[in-house]
Amino acid sequence: MTPVPTLSARLRDVRGSAIRDLLTLTARDDVLSLAGGLPAADLLPRERIAAAAARALASPASVQYGETAGLAPLREVVAAHESGRTGRPVAASDVVVTSGSQQALDLLARALLDPGDPVVVEDPCYVGALQVFQAAGADVRAVPLDGDGMRVDLLADRLAAGFRPRLVHTVSSFHNPRGVTLTQDRRRALAALADRYGFLVVEDDPYGLLSFAGEPPRPLAARSDRVVRLGSASKVIAPALRVGWLVGPPALTAGVELLKQSTDLCGSSLTQAIAAELLADEAWFAAHLRTVRAANRARAVALTAAVDDVLGDRVVRSTPTGGMFCWLDFTDGTDTTALLPRALGHGVGFVPGSAFALGSADGEDLSHAARVCFASYPGPVLAEAVARLERATRSVAV
Amino acid sequence: MTPVPTLSARLRDVRGSAIRDLLTLTARDDVLSLAGGLPAADLLPRERIAAAAARALASPASVQYGETAGLAPLREVVAAHESGRTGRPVAASDVVVTSGSQQALDLLARALLDPGDPVVVEDPCYVGALQVFQAAGADVRAVPLDGDGMRVDLLADRLAAGFRPRLVHTVSSFHNPRGVTLTQDRRRALAALADRYGFLVVEDDPYGLLSFAGEPPRPLAARSDRVVRLGSASKVIAPALRVGWLVGPPALTAGVELLKQSTDLCGSSLTQAIAAELLADEAWFAAHLRTVRAANRARAVALTAAVDDVLGDRVVRSTPTGGMFCWLDFTDGTDTTALLPRALGHGVGFVPGSAFALGSADGEDLSHAARVCFASYPGPVLAEAVARLERATRSVAV
Repeated sequence: MTPVPTLSARLRDVRGSAIRDLLTLTARDDVLSLAGGLPAADLLPRERIAAAAARALASPASVQYGETAGLAPLREVVAAHESGRTGRPVAASDVVVTSGSQQALDLLARALLDPGDPVVVEDPCYVGALQVFQAAGADVRAVPLDGDGMRVDLLADRLAAGFRPRLVHTVSSFHNPRGVTLTQDRRRALAALADRYGFLVVEDDPYGLLSFAGEPPRPLAARSDRVVRLGSASKVIAPALRVGWLVGPPALTAGVELLKQSTDLCGSSLTQAIAAELLADEAWFAAHLRTVRAANRARAVALTAAVDDVLGDRVVRSTPTGGMFCWLDFTDGTDTTALLPRALGHGVGFVPGSAFALGSADGEDLSHAARVCFASYPGPVLAEAVARLERATRSVAV
Repeated sequence: MTPVPTLSARLRDVRGSAIRDLLTLTARDDVLSLAGGLPAADLLPRERIAAAAARALASPASVQYGETAGLAPLREVVAAHESGRTGRPVAASDVVVTSGSQQALDLLARALLDPGDPVVVEDPCYVGALQVFQAAGADVRAVPLDGDGMRVDLLADRLAAGFRPRLVHTVSSFHNPRGVTLTQDRRRALAALADRYGFLVVEDDPYGLLSFAGEPPRPLAARSDRVVRLGSASKVIAPALRVGWLVGPPALTAGVELLKQSTDLCGSSLTQAIAAELLADEAWFAAHLRTVRAANRARAVALTAAVDDVLGDRVVRSTPTGGMFCWLDFTDGTDTTALLPRALGHGVGFVPGSAFALGSADGEDLSHAARVCFASYPGPVLAEAVARLERATRSVAV
């Protein structure tokens, strides 16, 4: 009989991602999946990547071990982009390249947090952040979101009452899952709180460049040097490069680099060379972003029109202004967790709001909510998916 | 003034890798570096990788997110290889693909260990393992090596005296840094101890296929189901793929997969597709391994001949039978840590033995030892590197 090893206590605290489990279910050919957070396959620049890969592979360095902090040209182009976006000088040495921004978050948490350290996340919460903070043994507290992003006023109340978090995590622009963007007034207020109370803000920003308006929202990091920024090539070039990054003060990046050494030695010299070439090709990158934004906007319009048309006042929905997600809130009592299996039976997948809940008693009630991704299909397919969803709601009501 | 964040207590326990710091120093154009653990650039199959990359990129899946446990065809070919090597049935579901075997080690440690859990490593120790166990807060104990690998008899004595480790880590074949291979008798004894006392053995085996004799040593995992195997494409194809794997019982692989989800979501679909194609191309892979083994053997012969010729009885050296490393032990009192800066001045780099020490009072004395990598240069360059090393020893002696 194969012996069963006992898992560590900290692993027993980590919840699996219901979303990634769902991806398996929704991968069936007969299901239109609005569940994933995947960029549209038809918009991923495969040919441009293939050309960059062929060019990179002309150099022996492309197949060898690389520096732990990342390929120098990639760190340089990320620093240049970040300087431009934040209006603050960012050096290549302030950048650590990671395996997607998820690894940046994991390394950051392990570098900064001791078990029991209080951290703030948003409610509903990006599940990947929740998992990371649980694995680090943090004391995770939630601050609710509304249509203007995190309720910074509620955080201010708790700080005034003596609450002292080590860090505050926010998906500031085009929130996953909620779709909202933190207003500039609230960014100013949050930055001021960070400076006053001495916590770090982790600005998790994979979607900022996917603003339908073209110009990304001005980052929180423009307003305080207590902001660590996480970015990613996954949503603006391709997930398979596994290229993300962390931008922060040298004491932190040194700690993150040390941990990355023991975590996976270094990233891929090949995919980092591809990312460096594509991010540095300003004309191509700008044109590519225009294409992706225009397609995503058209898809968001198609999705929301279909929702309004077939679900009407049975749901309140967000109005996407960028990113990949629309948030639905059923006003007719529909329990979305119960709806999901019926929806899959009708050939459509989504993520129930409860998947983004923190599981605490004082959390938001997300049982009537659903996250739908508008980025994965063209408009007519999205309309069909929403029609299936509506049929599924009627089958539940029976 | 930029605020300096306080790092976590566990990070303060992690020692940086002196080796990776050295790589920076030895990267100078005028230095012949025997310090790295890098496969020879001239033996990395860049053109074959480029062909596989082009083929992979014909499919949209190659640029999209992938499954956390790894690309199915890659898990299947690894399972087939592992079945063949261990003589035990290994299913694709027993395999988790990781970002190099370093990530497998990190995830394994985090999945299994709670702070204070005792673990055994070898002395001298693979530094990457030491860092991982320190980061997990483990109580790291060392068992010395001799020319036949780990002193399993000493481990048996401690177990008989009541010592109960959670796991025992061993680089069983062509040890990094010591170059030795655990004999089959000792493998049998270690497997029996694992079964008797209920600990896991982590068989870290990146070099097994680089046996000069052709046939890799029979794995420890052939002798007990308490052995978790770690493997890697880095030394047999190319490091930049960042493809490694862990093979273990389902309860462990499930835990590792859950942690990998929060750690970096998934590996690169692109580099995994490349690795899957190359590992599954039996004729090509066998021919490639023959080429690498023959080149490495010739290089090992050139290096050891040069050592014998110019250093003579001033060193005792290992006789490489595979892998990438030769171990030198100066018998004339040379302190290798003090020697290093002088050696760099003479244009040659190596890793002093002290870099592989555990830092405990009862550890082996490694102050006269050095790890040299024979894989990175052709014979004549290795001879020149050894000549420079000899000149450096004389300059220290002055």
